[in-house]
Amino acid sequence: LDLDGRGALFEQLARALKRAILDGRLLANGRLPSTRFLAMRLGVSRNTVLGAYELLCAEQLAVAVPGSGTRVTATTRPPAKIPTKVLVSSKARAPSRYAARARRLGPGTLARAGRDLRYNLQYGEPLMSAPLFQAWRRKLAAAALSAGPGYPRPGGYLPLRAVICDYLARRRGVTCAEEDVLIVGGTQQAFTLAARVLLDEGDAVVLEDPHYEMALGTLRAHGARIVSTRVDAQGLVVHELPPRGPRLICVTPSHQFPSGEVMSFARRVELLDYAARQDSWILEDDYDSEFRYEGRPLPALRSLDLADRVIYVGSFSKTLFPSLRLAYMVCPAAIREDLFRAKRLDDLGSPAIDQAALAAFLRGRRFEKHLLKSISELRRRRQTLLEGLNGHIGTSIKIAGAAAGMHVVAWLRRLDYAGLSRLIAMAAERDLGLHPIHPYYRTPPLCPGLLLGFAGLPIAQLEKATALLSQCLTEVESTWPLSPQILALRANLGM
Amino acid sequence: LDLDGRGALFEQLARALKRAILDGRLLANGRLPSTRFLAMRLGVSRNTVLGAYELLCAEQLAVAVPGSGTRVTATTRPPAKIPTKVLVSSKARAPSRYAARARRLGPGTLARAGRDLRYNLQYGEPLMSAPLFQAWRRKLAAAALSAGPGYPRPGGYLPLRAVICDYLARRRGVTCAEEDVLIVGGTQQAFTLAARVLLDEGDAVVLEDPHYEMALGTLRAHGARIVSTRVDAQGLVVHELPPRGPRLICVTPSHQFPSGEVMSFARRVELLDYAARQDSWILEDDYDSEFRYEGRPLPALRSLDLADRVIYVGSFSKTLFPSLRLAYMVCPAAIREDLFRAKRLDDLGSPAIDQAALAAFLRGRRFEKHLLKSISELRRRRQTLLEGLNGHIGTSIKIAGAAAGMHVVAWLRRLDYAGLSRLIAMAAERDLGLHPIHPYYRTPPLCPGLLLGFAGLPIAQLEKATALLSQCLTEVESTWPLSPQILALRANLGM
Repeated sequence: LDLDGRGALFEQLARALKRAILDGRLLANGRLPSTRFLAMRLGVSRNTVLGAYELLCAEQLAVAVPGSGTRVTATTRPPAKIPTKVLVSSKARAPSRYAARARRLGPGTLARAGRDLRYNLQYGEPLMSAPLFQAWRRKLAAAALSAGPGYPRPGGYLPLRAVICDYLARRRGVTCAEEDVLIVGGTQQAFTLAARVLLDEGDAVVLEDPHYEMALGTLRAHGARIVSTRVDAQGLVVHELPPRGPRLICVTPSHQFPSGEVMSFARRVELLDYAARQDSWILEDDYDSEFRYEGRPLPALRSLDLADRVIYVGSFSKTLFPSLRLAYMVCPAAIREDLFRAKRLDDLGSPAIDQAALAAFLRGRRFEKHLLKSISELRRRRQTLLEGLNGHIGTSIKIAGAAAGMHVVAWLRRLDYAGLSRLIAMAAERDLGLHPIHPYYRTPPLCPGLLLGFAGLPIAQLEKATALLSQCLTEVESTWPLSPQILALRANLGM
Repeated sequence: LDLDGRGALFEQLARALKRAILDGRLLANGRLPSTRFLAMRLGVSRNTVLGAYELLCAEQLAVAVPGSGTRVTATTRPPAKIPTKVLVSSKARAPSRYAARARRLGPGTLARAGRDLRYNLQYGEPLMSAPLFQAWRRKLAAAALSAGPGYPRPGGYLPLRAVICDYLARRRGVTCAEEDVLIVGGTQQAFTLAARVLLDEGDAVVLEDPHYEMALGTLRAHGARIVSTRVDAQGLVVHELPPRGPRLICVTPSHQFPSGEVMSFARRVELLDYAARQDSWILEDDYDSEFRYEGRPLPALRSLDLADRVIYVGSFSKTLFPSLRLAYMVCPAAIREDLFRAKRLDDLGSPAIDQAALAAFLRGRRFEKHLLKSISELRRRRQTLLEGLNGHIGTSIKIAGAAAGMHVVAWLRRLDYAGLSRLIAMAAERDLGLHPIHPYYRTPPLCPGLLLGFAGLPIAQLEKATALLSQCLTEVESTWPLSPQILALRANLGM
C-alpha cells in the first residue's frame, strides 16, 4: 500500500485502499484485513485504520458486515478489458485565456482592509435599518406564495419589471417599457452581460479614471482593451475620448465613482453625440442617484438618448441592502434580445421569491418612505462628517463629491503619499479605518486623497471617527510638513 | 418639428421637442408654446401636447410654472463649441461573437409547448408541497436576520457550505471541505463558470447524446466545439470518446438526462481513467440523485476521483424548487481559485438571505423529512404513471430510466415519427401535454420516444393523463400501423 503523503494519515490510507479496489487488487465482495491486523502491519494506530474503513464505507466502496468485518462492495467490479490504473495526480493544462486574465487581476482594494476596526470609514457599508429589515422579512415571507416554485422567467418577474418602469418614470425621468427591463444579479452582472454581448477579445472599452474596480475586473477578464479617460469637475472629459469609437463606454454620470463629480449637462449631450457618431454603446451606472443633498438632479443619459445607445443600470444594493443582489438593466432595442439571451444562458434568471418580494416592496409606500428616511439619515451623517472635519476643510482638506451618495472624497492638500501612509497607519492604531482613493486611479493623482464612506456608521461613531481623523491629520502634518515648493505647485494647480 | 413615427403621437412630439431643446433651437429658460396654440398649429389634440409636455417635465427637461405655462429648464444649456445634433438612429455594429453564437441557438425545447394544457407531462415541473413552502417562508424570514445586509462572501455563505459538505458525506459519499464548495445560481451557472474558466473558442467539449439543452446552449455560446458521444444502457460509451482528450466532459452518471440510464461502475472507472490520462476535466451533474426507487446508488464519480479532475455539481432545484436558483460546485484544487474568481467577477456572489435560509433548512431535520416524503410521493406518482401505461408496456411502449428521478422515457415501439406527431397533436386536443425526447438528441433515435415528467401532476391527474395517453396511443397505432419490415428491424436492434 502506497501512502501519498497528502492530508491526514487515515485519508491517505483510505485513498491507497481505494486505489487497490479500483485497480482490482482488492476484489469485490472480498474481506478487508481486520483493523487490528492492518494497524500492526502498517505500524499505525488502530484508529487510523478504523477511520480509513469508515471513509470507504461512506463512499460506498466498502460495507461493514456486523460480526465479519468490512467487505469491498459487490458493485465495485473493475472493468475487464480496460486500463484501471487511475492516476493520483496529473499536471492540469493551463486554464482558459479568461481564467489566465482573471488570475492577473490581483486581490483588489475591496478586499477590505480595516474591517475589524471599530470606526471604519469604508465605502460600501450599507445604512443599517432594523425596521426596513423587519419589513423586508414580511415581504419575503409573503412573496414566497406569489412567486411560486417553478422556474422564473429568465428576463425577470414581470410585476417587478412593471414597478421598476413606474419608479424610473417618476423618479429618474427615464421612460421605458417592461420588456426593456432585464432583472440581473447586481450591477456586477450587468457589467458581465454587457461584456459578453458587446465585446470580443481586444475590443476597446472606455472606463472613467478613477473607476469602480470590479467593473474593470470583469471587463479585463473578458479581454477588453481598457482605455482610461480622465474625469474633471464636469465628469468624463469627452473631448479626450479616442478618435475611433470604443465598443463600450462605462460612466457614472449622476455621481462619478469614486470622485463624486456630477457630469454636466453639456458633457452628457456631448457624450451621447460621440457615441451615436462613433457607433459606441454607453453603460450608464446610476448606482446611487437616489441620494442627493444639493442642487437639482440632471436628466439621466438614458432619458436624453434619442439614438437608443444607452444601457441604463440601476441597483438596489444602495437603496435597500447589498446582500439582496438585485439590479436591473434598461436595454436598447438593438441589443435587448442579446442581453436577455445572455442572462438566460448564464443562470436561467434571478431568484423568483426575492424578485416578488422586491416588487411588493417597491409597490407599497414603504419603499419611498424608506428612501426619504434614508436620505435624511444620510444627510445627517454626511453633515456630521463634514462638521467633524471643519477645522481642516479649506486648509488641509479639500472636499469633493459631497452633493450626492454615501461617500465624499477628502483631498489631503498638505500631505504627500508617504504622509498618507503614515496617516492610515496611525489611524489604524487608534481603531479608525481610512481608505485611500488612489488605488481607484490608473495614474495616481498628484495629491493624495481619502474615500470617506459615511453610511455605515451611526452619528456618535462618526463624531468619534472624525475627531480621530482630525487628531491624526494634525499630528502627521506637523511631524512631516510638506515642502513649500510642493505646496506652491499644488496651489498653482488649484488643489 | 419632425415626428419620427415611432410609438404614440404624444411620445413622438415629446421626442421632437427634446431634439429641439438638445440642439439649442429651444433655449434654456425659454417658454414652450401654449398647449392650445401648438395643438392648433400641428393639427393634433390638445391632450397630445399636454402628454408631450408632461413627459418633458418627467424627464426634467422642462418645468411647469403655475400661471405662466411650461419652460425649458435652466440646466439644459447646449454646449457651445461641440456638435449637438444627436442622431435619432444609427446602425448598430454586429454584437460579439458570443452574442452571434447565442443568436443562432434557437428558442429551445424548454420553451414549454403545452404549458396551458390541463394534463401536462412536462419534465421540470416541481413537486408542489404546501407545507414545504410554509416552512421555507419561515426560514426565509428568520434568515434575513442571520445573513445581514452586507455584501455576501462571493464563494457563498460559509454555514451553507459547511452543511452541504456534511450532506454530501452522509448521502452521496462525497468528501470535501467547505473551501472546495462554491455556491452558484443554479446548475446553469455551474456550466457557465466551467465554460468560462476552462474553454477558449474552438476547444472541444464532450456532451452526452442525448443531453440537457441549456448546457449545450451556454457551452456553444462560449464557442465550444461540441463532441456528442453516445449513451447506451451503461451510460456514456467511454471507448467512443475522441482519441485526443477534450477540455471538458459533461456527464449525468446517476440518472442520465434525459435517457434516464445509470452509468455503470466499470464505465465510471473507465471515464476517470480517460480524463486523467487525457488531461480532461469532468463536470458531474448529479441533478436528481436524491430520488432513487430501485437498486443501490453507485458512488459518485467525484468520490472515485483520485486524480482530482471532477467538478461535482448538485442542485436544489429538484429537491426543493426551481425558483430558488441555488446550486453548488465541488471544485478540484487545481481550478478552485479560478472558479471562485469567475463567480466573483460575474455577480459578486449569490443572494445571502436565500443562502442563509437554505443553510437553516438543510441543518434542521425538516429537509431530510421533506426528502423522504418527496421520495415516497414521487414513487407513488411514478407507480401511477407506470400502472396507467401497463396495458402498453412490453408491447407498444418500452420504459427506460425509471430507476430514479422525476421522469421516465417511453419508447414508442410501434410508431414512426409521423405517428409521434399525430399522437402529440391528438393528445393536445384532449388537454394532454406530451413531450418528445428526440429534440434532446443530436441524431434522432431510430424509434420515437416521449419524455414523461411525473413530478408536476397529483395522482388523480396522472391517472387521467395516462388514460388519455393510452387511448390516443391505441387510436394512432390502429389507424397508422407500422410496416412489418420496420417492426422486424426494430426487433433485431432490441427495441
